[in-house]
Amino acid sequence: MQREQGRSTLLRHIRQAGPVPRIELADRTGISRATVTTITAELLSHGLIEEVARTDSSPDSRRGRPRVDLRIRGKAHLLAGMKLSDRKLSLVLMDFAGAELAELETRMPASTQSPGQLATEIGAALDRLTAQADRTLADLSGIGVGIAGVVEAARGFVYWSPSLSDRNIPLGALLSDHLGIPVFVDNDANLVAVAEQGFGLGRGRDDFIVVTIESGVGLGLVIGGTLYRGTRGCGAEFGHTKVHFEGALCRCGQRGCLEAYVADYALLREALTVPGAGDPGAGTEARMQALLSAARAGDASARSILDRSGRVFAMGLANLVNIFDPDLIILAGEQMQFDHLYADAVIEAMRRSIVQVDKPPPEVVIHKWGNLMWARGAAAYALDQVTDLALAGMADNAG
Amino acid sequence: MQREQGRSTLLRHIRQAGPVPRIELADRTGISRATVTTITAELLSHGLIEEVARTDSSPDSRRGRPRVDLRIRGKAHLLAGMKLSDRKLSLVLMDFAGAELAELETRMPASTQSPGQLATEIGAALDRLTAQADRTLADLSGIGVGIAGVVEAARGFVYWSPSLSDRNIPLGALLSDHLGIPVFVDNDANLVAVAEQGFGLGRGRDDFIVVTIESGVGLGLVIGGTLYRGTRGCGAEFGHTKVHFEGALCRCGQRGCLEAYVADYALLREALTVPGAGDPGAGTEARMQALLSAARAGDASARSILDRSGRVFAMGLANLVNIFDPDLIILAGEQMQFDHLYADAVIEAMRRSIVQVDKPPPEVVIHKWGNLMWARGAAAYALDQVTDLALAGMADNAG
Repeated sequence: MQREQGRSTLLRHIRQAGPVPRIELADRTGISRATVTTITAELLSHGLIEEVARTDSSPDSRRGRPRVDLRIRGKAHLLAGMKLSDRKLSLVLMDFAGAELAELETRMPASTQSPGQLATEIGAALDRLTAQADRTLADLSGIGVGIAGVVEAARGFVYWSPSLSDRNIPLGALLSDHLGIPVFVDNDANLVAVAEQGFGLGRGRDDFIVVTIESGVGLGLVIGGTLYRGTRGCGAEFGHTKVHFEGALCRCGQRGCLEAYVADYALLREALTVPGAGDPGAGTEARMQALLSAARAGDASARSILDRSGRVFAMGLANLVNIFDPDLIILAGEQMQFDHLYADAVIEAMRRSIVQVDKPPPEVVIHKWGNLMWARGAAAYALDQVTDLALAGMADNAG
Repeated sequence: MQREQGRSTLLRHIRQAGPVPRIELADRTGISRATVTTITAELLSHGLIEEVARTDSSPDSRRGRPRVDLRIRGKAHLLAGMKLSDRKLSLVLMDFAGAELAELETRMPASTQSPGQLATEIGAALDRLTAQADRTLADLSGIGVGIAGVVEAARGFVYWSPSLSDRNIPLGALLSDHLGIPVFVDNDANLVAVAEQGFGLGRGRDDFIVVTIESGVGLGLVIGGTLYRGTRGCGAEFGHTKVHFEGALCRCGQRGCLEAYVADYALLREALTVPGAGDPGAGTEARMQALLSAARAGDASARSILDRSGRVFAMGLANLVNIFDPDLIILAGEQMQFDHLYADAVIEAMRRSIVQVDKPPPEVVIHKWGNLMWARGAAAYALDQVTDLALAGMADNAG
């Protein structure tokens, strides 16, 4: 048990620190030099790490002995991460050292598909992705999948997702069977939080909140350095928290959900009342563009629609601040069409809606990143899970 | 450092396990028997624990050797806990073993007082409380104070409280100075959560939510076995989360807060519209009774007031469920006048307002307990803090 703990600690330290001398590992982790030597030998023999000649001229190098550092061996495992969004599949291919080898964005035939259709789409996309790096699907050690909805990550179980035509799907197991490779499924906003923590604006921060805005509103919570999934694994649901008693009808069938005020469909149904705000028969994107143009051109109704959306969003954010008292909120998304939610006026409205005490309001930062960054979060999650599997395999072999 | 850790672990184990043999302490904690012997000798010499003859006839007792167990020494420290509520001060006196020695409820001249007035009131009440057990204020080792409002417990700082006429009061330090005894201040709902965890319905549960209902609505979160205070120490604010965009005016000056729909003042201002629902000049309690009586007698407006209050409360609870996905929610309060919020219909409405997935809704239990139970939570908090101080004192002496 202690040995397993030591392996995990050292491997993660090597991952964080980049090329690092053994002696520094002992100093940083408090693990004895003898044990560091033993464990790193194991990790080397299992091919998870590799030695690399040090390039700098540290004092010891004058003695003429070749000095080596340790680093993660990129070739050890190949991983994929993907994000499912409305009709779009975004994928990245990553090696075990976290280097990105390929990326791909592809369209899907429908927003909502059966689990079987989705598995076929994902398989085809993975074939194309791996081919870009002259590899095949079979070379993958693990796949991370981010999907909107209510997901119990520990068992890859999707209670409900806008991307799936059926409820209660053991999506992780189903995709693993279909592809023949371990698949790890999580809520997409959780994976954005993982990505922000790993290589984004949450780096080095133990507590922060990520709010994502797409066609839905997502929430990822990092509490005490760890992604918080709620007591029973399905927490951090924000888009369907209620912000108006018996309010606007939501797609989920309930009334007053945050999404019923800020999602694109919510804005577009109000836009039906605005003359000249686009053709009701056009697609979502075109209609959103028309609404935004009308607002910019000064149409009072169009502006009122966006204005209310922003103020309700501010109120929802303020509720999170009251509950979590965070010092950092990251608003993550990419789409221009939600720029009105990132406006200074919205942040200001949020500050006015929190309990007013004499302490600075939380820092709010806006991180616009594309679907590929979400996919990177999914790959990072797969990397973590595959690392656990690799270490567990060592424990089984070595006892 | 390891020694300090060992002292803390063993003392807390002895507290939990009641009279316990040394050998069992070693088995349970994984600390070696030799170290257990050394540390318990220290704890004995500092008077924090005591030996007690075992009463049962365990196998070893046949050998005729007198067997002793260890337990917390009640006389080691004397503590008080108190809860401030609207015009009421509820206090308990507790020994270091957690035994209650006295209790007291006393009225205060006003709901809102200056810090100085409050300190005087508290001092007088503590004199009366300690006198009941033939002790004096000076015998106390620590005092726990639960107060409504925004409190940063780590430094006993009250940003705002309905009980205080001023904002930004270092109440812990101020009371410590005034009384000459360490005072530990926390938000009152947090202390209810501590009490539920220590000796209530949250015993043995690592994650649960406590919602308190009085003149305000409080929230206490236990996450991973620990009270969660938010990133910056002032989280878990629930009564002023917004449940209605630009809704009813709250006492805090903002609109749409949960309290603006469920607090007594919110019901009573609507009751002004109900003919025969009591004399507007009467006191809060009498007016609430009149409103409740009118509702029971079938008055449609009175029923509508209580009904909306219950449904908005349900919506607020559902928001917590969406965010935390708890398996246990404890509704804690005592007052008959809020019985409509504990109704089955409210719990049912909460269940309908959460994201609908095929998993059981959280268990909701109702724990009606009086102000004295809140005071016990405050005393338990003081007990914990005084234990830390005592152990730190040993570390300073023993190195």
